[in-house]
Amino acid sequence: MQDKLDQLKSHLARVRDLELVNSVLEWDMEVLMPEGAAKSRADQTATMEALAHQYFVDEEIGSLLDELRDFESSLPFDSNEASIIRVNRRDYEQQVRIPTHLVEELARHRSLSYHSWMKARQQKDFSIFEADLARMIDLQKQVAAALSDGGNPYDALLDIFEPGMTYEKIDTVFSGLKPNLIKLVEAITANKDRVDDSILRFPLSLDKQEAFAREVTAKFGFDYTKGRLDFFNGHPFETHFYQGDVRITTRIEEDYPAGALMSSIHEAGHGMYEQGVSLDLYRTRLDNGASSSIHESQSRFFENVIGRSRPFLKYWYPKFQQITTPNLDNVDLDTFYRAINKSEPSLIRVDADEVTYGLHVILRFELENDLINGRVKVSDLPKEWNSRMKQYLGVTPPDDSKGVLQDVHWSAGLFGYFPDYLLGTIFSVQLWEQMKKDIPDVEAQIERGEFDQVLGWQRKNVHVHGKKFTLPELSERVTGGPLRWEPYMNYLQAKYSEIYRL
Amino acid sequence: MQDKLDQLKSHLARVRDLELVNSVLEWDMEVLMPEGAAKSRADQTATMEALAHQYFVDEEIGSLLDELRDFESSLPFDSNEASIIRVNRRDYEQQVRIPTHLVEELARHRSLSYHSWMKARQQKDFSIFEADLARMIDLQKQVAAALSDGGNPYDALLDIFEPGMTYEKIDTVFSGLKPNLIKLVEAITANKDRVDDSILRFPLSLDKQEAFAREVTAKFGFDYTKGRLDFFNGHPFETHFYQGDVRITTRIEEDYPAGALMSSIHEAGHGMYEQGVSLDLYRTRLDNGASSSIHESQSRFFENVIGRSRPFLKYWYPKFQQITTPNLDNVDLDTFYRAINKSEPSLIRVDADEVTYGLHVILRFELENDLINGRVKVSDLPKEWNSRMKQYLGVTPPDDSKGVLQDVHWSAGLFGYFPDYLLGTIFSVQLWEQMKKDIPDVEAQIERGEFDQVLGWQRKNVHVHGKKFTLPELSERVTGGPLRWEPYMNYLQAKYSEIYRL
Repeated sequence: MQDKLDQLKSHLARVRDLELVNSVLEWDMEVLMPEGAAKSRADQTATMEALAHQYFVDEEIGSLLDELRDFESSLPFDSNEASIIRVNRRDYEQQVRIPTHLVEELARHRSLSYHSWMKARQQKDFSIFEADLARMIDLQKQVAAALSDGGNPYDALLDIFEPGMTYEKIDTVFSGLKPNLIKLVEAITANKDRVDDSILRFPLSLDKQEAFAREVTAKFGFDYTKGRLDFFNGHPFETHFYQGDVRITTRIEEDYPAGALMSSIHEAGHGMYEQGVSLDLYRTRLDNGASSSIHESQSRFFENVIGRSRPFLKYWYPKFQQITTPNLDNVDLDTFYRAINKSEPSLIRVDADEVTYGLHVILRFELENDLINGRVKVSDLPKEWNSRMKQYLGVTPPDDSKGVLQDVHWSAGLFGYFPDYLLGTIFSVQLWEQMKKDIPDVEAQIERGEFDQVLGWQRKNVHVHGKKFTLPELSERVTGGPLRWEPYMNYLQAKYSEIYRL
Repeated sequence: MQDKLDQLKSHLARVRDLELVNSVLEWDMEVLMPEGAAKSRADQTATMEALAHQYFVDEEIGSLLDELRDFESSLPFDSNEASIIRVNRRDYEQQVRIPTHLVEELARHRSLSYHSWMKARQQKDFSIFEADLARMIDLQKQVAAALSDGGNPYDALLDIFEPGMTYEKIDTVFSGLKPNLIKLVEAITANKDRVDDSILRFPLSLDKQEAFAREVTAKFGFDYTKGRLDFFNGHPFETHFYQGDVRITTRIEEDYPAGALMSSIHEAGHGMYEQGVSLDLYRTRLDNGASSSIHESQSRFFENVIGRSRPFLKYWYPKFQQITTPNLDNVDLDTFYRAINKSEPSLIRVDADEVTYGLHVILRFELENDLINGRVKVSDLPKEWNSRMKQYLGVTPPDDSKGVLQDVHWSAGLFGYFPDYLLGTIFSVQLWEQMKKDIPDVEAQIERGEFDQVLGWQRKNVHVHGKKFTLPELSERVTGGPLRWEPYMNYLQAKYSEIYRL
């Protein structure tokens, strides 16, 4: 049977190479490809995705996965071997249902609609993107129809990014959180003058911002011999082509140095996750973060739970004062801490604070469900977006670039991905509660600028496992129970009651 | 039959995508990949090359090429359709002889030996590279054996880069040139004090060097919406993933601004060639420079024939004086012209002047022939290299990094490529002689900074045809006769007799 497993692994290695090569193409496309290459890159990624798909859904892989059922049962659930078989079977059963021509068409349309979305956003004109988005939603419906055995078609898309998750399961969590978030937002809004973040707005040279972002992320444990940080003007993101080749990007605004810093920490959180996946899983298709939720649990853990905490700032703020002198010379730690945690309803999700963030996600989650189920028409989307923003956050976008056009996801065919931002955020706090139990003096360590145990804990409990476990499985393993929204809400309540003296 | 051609083209499109994607991987590897990725990138390129090869030598392509023979004969030789069939048949008949496992092994070994070559060069220690080079030569011999029907095995390798070329044919050209070059080198050496290039050695900030390189190359016609110029510390090169995605790189030395400038022009010459290939040839495998010789005819045309000429400098030198002020304020155009054309036997091929350059190439050509035919042992290579350098150029490398380890080519498996540098250089002058006939006032145009007709002439006569014609075919078409070394030697003689007052 070891023989059959080796055969399976050799098939998977080729598929994985093709998947990772395609990621190189996409990184290049976003970070540095010249505009004249849009057409060719669309062809290239379409060919690569079709091939990766074709080789993965190969009948031989199907037979091997079948033949390995008994062998898998004989092994511990959490062994690498059993997991390689189990997780690849799950993916196989999903992907085998999607016809190769649809994969290819999606890849091609993604490249095209990415460009029309970019143009629409730049020109603040939704109509430029409308037809491509409608086509993308149509393609997504085709994917959902191929994957689904009935029920809500949105469930099939959610399952791609977070296996086992359905609209109903997620809605149960979000429905618990939503009224509490709205109440907290109202309480903060009523006391909004108690925090002033205007002290964060001052210019700092790009060079200094870059150097500081590199220093902080390296200290956390992002290994620059196994990755890169690039600064560019697009949507910040992380991608990886190997545990030893992890690329993160950040957008720098000259007038808001705290922004690039926090964004770098966020992406480094994703990056350290990928760098920490066991090398034993290389080319098995489990050499990857487990899911988008768990990925987000890492990025938002390092950005918010740690990066916007008093202990972290106690160590780093004096250094930040030094490189930004004289701008913050007379701003004490407490004032800076409160400023960097200011909560205020705003238009852009990626810039949203910890309290309002969840509502941005819930809005998208609900809208996606309505779009896929045909209850909202694409032509009505800007209107619908704006009316829900008003309802949840009390703000109205002045134009679509700050509204429905702000996120790259839909142009990239990522429907069903948004809820994972909030699921991951919720999980990040559940991990933090567990970490504090396991490392009682963790906050004192962070105050001293010691991050080895923090990273080590995530390495051991989350990173090393790669894609072996789902969110429910990992939650059970690490925290002894299922995902719960209450610890997250308690964390927000405590943190913001103190900041806003509620 | 149009139907069969369409089928062929759809097969070729996939192959071409895979080839171009592999070029993205290689560009990334050389320009910005982190060191931790060496292993994964070797796996990825091996998988890609094996797939591209496997899909290209597919039996169906073979049958289609067969079935299209009559159709091809019915079409004009220089039509796109006939050329697509003819050139792909030639490549097919070559590649089908190389077993896929050898392609994969070569790709993998190339990644490994690239790294051991780098290390050997850094540590100036040939022994670090010796075993990998020996293995590479062994693999090259296997390729030659697979391709060859007898005769000199080196011919089979030469034919890969310059179809139809053999050791004997090239030797005929080089043997005519060699004694003349040696004589000219001797005459210049006897008068070496007549030109002083120390005025070129002064520091200039990297920013200014980059900006000027971009300005000059853009003015020549390199289109930055369809390409990039990156500055990095490795061997300068050009690569392309589409006519609209051409990447060139340059190495900058802070203390020698003329170096980065000339190197940028050289690479832009390659780049403009690729940008100018007819879009009708996209994804046909003819969307590519014709051969390495013809490629070099373009880069060395723009770098030397134009870039080191009086008319060019008449326009650009005042601008160069401005950005380098005060260093060249008191250096007149004639002094600068002579300095930038100084000829002196030296160690490094890529830094060699126009006169000595050919001897560097001839040395490699002869050595490769001896290596492939087993007349020189790998362990004797440094000794052999140094003794021939002494004989041809009168200089001896102080260590192997400035001798046998200086070029990347052998580590990359490029045996049979070197002679094309000189063949292309020879052809660049033959093109220039023709251009002067076709555009009588071309030098006056260049003096005025007008390059449209220069580029337009190359576009129309060379670029647009892509890979349709071989060097002999193109030479015949454009200059009305075969490749001849005499115009090149006359050009050198005239230029250098004037500069050195011989």
